[in-house]
Amino acid sequence: MTLTHEEHARPQALRAAIRRGTWTGPTAGLAPGAAQANLVVLPAADALDFLRFCVHNAQACPVLEVTDPGAVEPALTAPGADLRTDVPRYRVYRDGELVEEPPDVVAHWRDDLVAFLLGCSFTFERALLAEGLPVRHIEQRVNVPMYRTSIDCRASGRFAGPLVVSMRPMRPDQAIRATQVTARFVRAHGAPVHVGTPETIGIADLDRPDYGDPVELRDGELPVFWACGVTPQAVAQSCRPELMITHAPGHMFVTDEPEARQA
Amino acid sequence: MTLTHEEHARPQALRAAIRRGTWTGPTAGLAPGAAQANLVVLPAADALDFLRFCVHNAQACPVLEVTDPGAVEPALTAPGADLRTDVPRYRVYRDGELVEEPPDVVAHWRDDLVAFLLGCSFTFERALLAEGLPVRHIEQRVNVPMYRTSIDCRASGRFAGPLVVSMRPMRPDQAIRATQVTARFVRAHGAPVHVGTPETIGIADLDRPDYGDPVELRDGELPVFWACGVTPQAVAQSCRPELMITHAPGHMFVTDEPEARQA
Repeated sequence: MTLTHEEHARPQALRAAIRRGTWTGPTAGLAPGAAQANLVVLPAADALDFLRFCVHNAQACPVLEVTDPGAVEPALTAPGADLRTDVPRYRVYRDGELVEEPPDVVAHWRDDLVAFLLGCSFTFERALLAEGLPVRHIEQRVNVPMYRTSIDCRASGRFAGPLVVSMRPMRPDQAIRATQVTARFVRAHGAPVHVGTPETIGIADLDRPDYGDPVELRDGELPVFWACGVTPQAVAQSCRPELMITHAPGHMFVTDEPEARQA
Repeated sequence: MTLTHEEHARPQALRAAIRRGTWTGPTAGLAPGAAQANLVVLPAADALDFLRFCVHNAQACPVLEVTDPGAVEPALTAPGADLRTDVPRYRVYRDGELVEEPPDVVAHWRDDLVAFLLGCSFTFERALLAEGLPVRHIEQRVNVPMYRTSIDCRASGRFAGPLVVSMRPMRPDQAIRATQVTARFVRAHGAPVHVGTPETIGIADLDRPDYGDPVELRDGELPVFWACGVTPQAVAQSCRPELMITHAPGHMFVTDEPEARQA
């Protein structure tokens, strides 16, 4: 599973490679400069309540685009893309149960589906690296660790459930600088939601993330937590919509939007 | 039309005074410290497309809260308030035509109505004043001037139309500082969208605003323009929803949310 330089560098070429099945892995570090996005697809009947949920929980679910019902193209953020094929790996939830993790969702698509693209913390990782701040899952070439927390989202209609967070280990001085750097990325989860004491937010064991892979926490480092766009998947497991299609955690949709414009 | 000190100072008391009909004027400068909001009310059938319009035009329409269909209370941003009575003056649009400007909309309310509260630039005016920057409409005790522009919003479903802006005159050095100060108020229109040349954005005559009152532009001052939450009213006149209820421009809904948290 290798990408050409062009496919590694440019969002359009990367999406084409993903569409062909050449890349099925996580997308952290790919197409540097392009904003990445979480995907949530729901029947139109659930779309208003879910979009209300997003705007009421904007740090976890910053909305980049919402498609017309049935449309497969995100015309604002990635013209020409196809949301049924251009994500490396999908998850299909039926009545809140994860039933499949396919490489495309062509067979699942319906005319009444509405797709939501939500900002992703991968979008600010290049800004962290540019400051010399560590991004451990990129160093270790694994998926970012993500955890369900004991923090409740603000309920909206049928949608309610726990906040999910991503975690990056940093020294305290690095955590402070990372807070400054990420705060302005308001369309990509912004500043951290917690630092230092995972048990305070209901995380029992950092070595056992609910999504993604564990990463090394070194001496003198604190875990730093950012709101995560996998939150809707945890919410689906609570409120059980008939159908919800998402990206697989860490396997994002890569937009044409400049990451700098998410700040 | 006078307010007690308590009514002038506190959002709950101010809303009660508005509900009683004691205050029917613009709200700039009132309840300092409390975030103010634009109101848009639409039938549930239009709600998803309108909320998509808002998230696709977030600088004009930053969403603070969306009510459950039929609910009159904005439970997140002003618990106990009643959106039918707690705005000093409303506008009722039918098929895109302004048909009434009543002091309450109790008689117009329906079980299928959804209310949207959108951030307002009045929310950052105290931060401007704290920097010694001028807010001319507060100085002159008139309503802020607002203009329809030639800038198109991003269409979403049936909702499309021109961006509306508010204007504050400032010297160039003040305009630069005001840009810094307001940029962080992402839930209250953020940084300006234009400065200096109104004709570039389709404004022919600053002395004839489309909404609100003209203000004095002094020697050496430039007009500075911010995206405005009256935009949905200009959009209604383009796309003609069956019913749209809004605040009258400048006559805002005052929330309990700290203005500092809109940044």
